Amino acid sequence: MRKKNPEKAALILEAARQLILQEGAAAVSTTKVARAVGIAQSNIYIYFKSKDDMLRQVYKDAQTRIQTYFVENQPDTTDIRPAIIGYIDCMYGFATHDFATFEVLHQIKAIPEAHWTREIADAQAPVALIRSGIETGILRPVAPAVHMSIVFNAVRQCVLSQKAGEVTDFAMVRDMLLAAVFMPD
Amino acid sequence: MRKKNPEKAALILEAARQLILQEGAAAVSTTKVARAVGIAQSNIYIYFKSKDDMLRQVYKDAQTRIQTYFVENQPDTTDIRPAIIGYIDCMYGFATHDFATFEVLHQIKAIPEAHWTREIADAQAPVALIRSGIETGILRPVAPAVHMSIVFNAVRQCVLSQKAGEVTDFAMVRDMLLAAVFMPD
Repeated sequence: MRKKNPEKAALILEAARQLILQEGAAAVSTTKVARAVGIAQSNIYIYFKSKDDMLRQVYKDAQTRIQTYFVENQPDTTDIRPAIIGYIDCMYGFATHDFATFEVLHQIKAIPEAHWTREIADAQAPVALIRSGIETGILRPVAPAVHMSIVFNAVRQCVLSQKAGEVTDFAMVRDMLLAAVFMPD
Repeated sequence: MRKKNPEKAALILEAARQLILQEGAAAVSTTKVARAVGIAQSNIYIYFKSKDDMLRQVYKDAQTRIQTYFVENQPDTTDIRPAIIGYIDCMYGFATHDFATFEVLHQIKAIPEAHWTREIADAQAPVALIRSGIETGILRPVAPAVHMSIVFNAVRQCVLSQKAGEVTDFAMVRDMLLAAVFMPD
């Protein structure tokens, strides 16, 4: 049994991230990742059981990064309305702070075979918050995934448009999102 | 010069579509498509200049299918407000009518290198309609791509949630979208 080196595992995950950003998550293979790190393909399997296991780790790592940012930046409240507004603002804050990780999440979620992204995402705090918001009549009663998808994709497209030089004020996108997710008075 | 066979071209495009739906657009290669059709890889190049050219044709073909549906189902009006409502309803109608094509569009748009999807999409009628809506103060003034992304992804997630057995009424998602895109009174 070959000895594991935590630094090597980190290098593999970083190479996988870069490949995802350049070519898309579905294009990632252990062959390409091994070539990028400069190791034999068989060495990947010392650290990860399969390509799917490697992508799952990249996804979990990206989820940890976004969660850490949310914990540090979200308003400290149990009140649903400000917590939801904080969630939207944090999503934009994170997208401008670390767009690469934001994009890695988007790319991995797009893989048709990666059903586990839904399970990992469903266990996160926002889903529980959205469910409480729906139960208390504050949020519109649609699947939490619809709320999250609208927020994530609007923020993503807002940042992409800004990067493309198109004038799109987040304040206006934020108004769209608040009107979309909250029940009207 | 080998002779082109239009039926062979259609078989190649259909095989590419199936691969996109199973593995994601970034995972498509001319090798895999050739294997699925049962032809030599070099034969693909009789019909398509490159993998990118093949994906572009699949994307254009999917755009044609969605446009045809819209032309047949959208209300015949030049009035912006009902035209936008018709656009949202048609998007849902198309997603339930032909989810495979809807998903092919989603998958190809997700490829990091496919910058041409934006050019092809920008030339479509909805962008002109959204621009008029913004100019006349009917729609919120954000990049048209933000409007389109919100509508497309909310509809997609609504249909995915329904397929997963979660109760999500399109009428409620429609209300979210109308509140999101239109300027409040």
